Amino acid sequence: MKQEESSTKDTKLLFRQAYDYIVTRIELGEWQTHDKLPSIRMLAQELRIHRLTVFRAYQMLKQNGKAYVKEKSGYYVSPGNTQQVISEHPESHPVTSSGFLKNSLAEIQQVPVVYQFSQALIDPNLLPNLYLSEYVKQVFDDYPKLMGTYSNVQGDEELCEFLCRYMKESHNLQLSVSDLLVTTGGQQAIDLISRVYIRPMDPILVERPTYSSALDIFRQQGARIIPVDITLGGYDLEKVEMLMIQHRPRIFYMNPTFHNPTGYTVPKAQRKQLVELAERYHCLLVEDDAIHEMYFDEPPPEPMLTYDTNGWVVYIRSFSKYVAPGLRICVVIGRPSVITPLLTAKSLADNGTPLVNQKLFLHYFESERMRQHLKKLRIALQVRKEIVEEELKTTGWTWDSPKGGFNLWLKLPETLPVEGFLNECMEQSISFIPGIICDPLREMRSWIRLSYSFINEEHLRSGVRRLANIAERYSVR
Amino acid sequence: MKQEESSTKDTKLLFRQAYDYIVTRIELGEWQTHDKLPSIRMLAQELRIHRLTVFRAYQMLKQNGKAYVKEKSGYYVSPGNTQQVISEHPESHPVTSSGFLKNSLAEIQQVPVVYQFSQALIDPNLLPNLYLSEYVKQVFDDYPKLMGTYSNVQGDEELCEFLCRYMKESHNLQLSVSDLLVTTGGQQAIDLISRVYIRPMDPILVERPTYSSALDIFRQQGARIIPVDITLGGYDLEKVEMLMIQHRPRIFYMNPTFHNPTGYTVPKAQRKQLVELAERYHCLLVEDDAIHEMYFDEPPPEPMLTYDTNGWVVYIRSFSKYVAPGLRICVVIGRPSVITPLLTAKSLADNGTPLVNQKLFLHYFESERMRQHLKKLRIALQVRKEIVEEELKTTGWTWDSPKGGFNLWLKLPETLPVEGFLNECMEQSISFIPGIICDPLREMRSWIRLSYSFINEEHLRSGVRRLANIAERYSVR
Repeated sequence: MKQEESSTKDTKLLFRQAYDYIVTRIELGEWQTHDKLPSIRMLAQELRIHRLTVFRAYQMLKQNGKAYVKEKSGYYVSPGNTQQVISEHPESHPVTSSGFLKNSLAEIQQVPVVYQFSQALIDPNLLPNLYLSEYVKQVFDDYPKLMGTYSNVQGDEELCEFLCRYMKESHNLQLSVSDLLVTTGGQQAIDLISRVYIRPMDPILVERPTYSSALDIFRQQGARIIPVDITLGGYDLEKVEMLMIQHRPRIFYMNPTFHNPTGYTVPKAQRKQLVELAERYHCLLVEDDAIHEMYFDEPPPEPMLTYDTNGWVVYIRSFSKYVAPGLRICVVIGRPSVITPLLTAKSLADNGTPLVNQKLFLHYFESERMRQHLKKLRIALQVRKEIVEEELKTTGWTWDSPKGGFNLWLKLPETLPVEGFLNECMEQSISFIPGIICDPLREMRSWIRLSYSFINEEHLRSGVRRLANIAERYSVR
Repeated sequence: MKQEESSTKDTKLLFRQAYDYIVTRIELGEWQTHDKLPSIRMLAQELRIHRLTVFRAYQMLKQNGKAYVKEKSGYYVSPGNTQQVISEHPESHPVTSSGFLKNSLAEIQQVPVVYQFSQALIDPNLLPNLYLSEYVKQVFDDYPKLMGTYSNVQGDEELCEFLCRYMKESHNLQLSVSDLLVTTGGQQAIDLISRVYIRPMDPILVERPTYSSALDIFRQQGARIIPVDITLGGYDLEKVEMLMIQHRPRIFYMNPTFHNPTGYTVPKAQRKQLVELAERYHCLLVEDDAIHEMYFDEPPPEPMLTYDTNGWVVYIRSFSKYVAPGLRICVVIGRPSVITPLLTAKSLADNGTPLVNQKLFLHYFESERMRQHLKKLRIALQVRKEIVEEELKTTGWTWDSPKGGFNLWLKLPETLPVEGFLNECMEQSISFIPGIICDPLREMRSWIRLSYSFINEEHLRSGVRRLANIAERYSVR
């Protein structure tokens, strides 16, 4: 019985994947208006799925007005589906962008609101700002030519050497400078990895749910996204292996520690096994680890990277979200064979992260003061999380209380339609992230991500009350 | 007669373009080992060129071992041409990058040498460093939470408003904030524009010679590069129009003011006409203007952007090369319809340029001190240029003395093979840029770019003498 259920669900997933895949190709402009779509037989062969699955996807395309049928000929792209820039004066200025570009998260975060529950970022007031200013002056005295000097592409040598020592001390990893690449934030790291290691149509594994901008980056690159459910207990490893056998994915993009958006942490026991699976099936694990130090009671398990023996993990350690968001410093760690092509991509993308940022970060992060500060930060975050949880008690919403990180992943009742609820909240100057944009399958309609890291305790309390009030009024009974 | 010559040259160009195009697709991994290449008829149709031209390109592929022929079937990709990461342990670690990645310029510049003639960048000692450090402290006092704050994607509002005023004062342009996007250096601007406005196989116009990293970016994107000669007098506009009619290029990437590498400036009279051509043939002019203020005797003509009435120019104004290389601040200017898709691409690429850099740049660049400093900088540069020209007099090399900028574009005698000469120089701790990497056709073997902006006067003199000595010894007689 369980077997049957699972296979029904898989078929459903496959059919949605095929549908998404075709829509993406249309939006990318590869298949244009009135172009003939591949035959069901051809597409089934290409995607290695059953013809009936492709048939169902085509039926849905037709239903949704994205394709039409010509008798005895096949399916054709309906007009109006290729993504184009909407120009203010379309006649006089038809410059059109070529790609499928969307960043749903940024669209929400860019709206200025009083109650910013959409920003998974540390409250600037929690940083030791006065100390910081004093400290910056010292750095500019130490490096008087800082403003006039380019960084190399890989990253400032002094910073890279420090990061090697840091990874040795904190994770007992033996690294050399050629294993590192400094990037401008974790976002750039994901983008570079995507550009180097994903070709259009390449299958990749991605957690469900996941960081929505990563999804947008992978879609922009034309990847075929295969979801892997993440739960409180981690992944279903048998399922992961099955997907690796079936699809031979190029990468598995994962965020196993205080996962965004759920807050889950993949247990230690699974980590080694995952690295073994990656090795066996030649799938590069892309481990995104942006808030490793933001735990509450005890440190999380060691990164996947520490279990890697043959170079099948590339590790993204961002310090942007809780050390110095104004500097955007992140390091990518992997074997030189993995890092070298990323270096070239980085040199083409921006010629290296600005030196000022690297030097400021280095001297700030290695200071004793910063180490002390991290302890305070963890406590402040935990307090904020508890405030939100307390205020949410009466809502009837459900969640797993996270053991670290910035977010609550909340299941709302079915009677509360999230899209309308979000619009209503935005009008009342409250923002959060709707779960649907974190879902590769775009189905998690009853979930939202609420970040408690960005707004201060007072606003946090009143903000959650407002939110709960709006929900109360907005619910469909 | 002239007609005929030109048409012969065009055919030659076309055949080389077709060749490059096929090689790029193979290197990109789109056509893999033992894949059948498209038929001559199909490719001729796709590229809108004559079948004989494709035939010549295929013959050359065969000659160079990149393709082989099966009787009565066609051309196939030979093994060993797809770009792959060379792993240290190929058996144990076959992670391969997916794309065609190369940055020839960065490869040369990353080599540490004493006499850095390859770096078109201002000598850090020419910046007012002491003043700078004092000044930075002030900025951190004024914005105590700077280190803790993310920028928005478009760019810091205060900076954008300043840049609008600046463009009004310096070029009488009436802009609003929505016409701007702040990027991390000009390189990122070119990369974002390339990602948004170029699809694989799109024809684009590029100056010959040009900025070599731009070429590498366009190749990475899979563009079909069509060269436009730039000379002391600008472009051959009739030729440009012909190319626009023939190829309908999506963009024309140009660097019309103190052009890199030649130093040429497209005359005022041609600028308006070029904008008109762009409008007529719906070709977006991408105007790269990185050293506009680095003139010697008189300011250069106004940017192309000032002649634009219908939104066919997107303007890249970098301040990275002579204001503050350690900050990497650049602004892209265009109509909102052109800028909006770039904003999304920027949000996916790195979520916005770090705020620290934007604030430091703003307060530095708008200061009276900086304005005064630019005057001194221009004089210092001119002195350096003259030192190099004086020292080169006895070499027999030829060049057009530039009216601004950082580079000399030098024609070497045929008796001096540049590749070996460069290797010899690198061994003696001297670097420069070989012209061949600046040439879309990879043919300018007798040219080199010598940057006089980066090394101090004393080293400049001794460096050029060393260079000339090596040339003397290395020449084939």
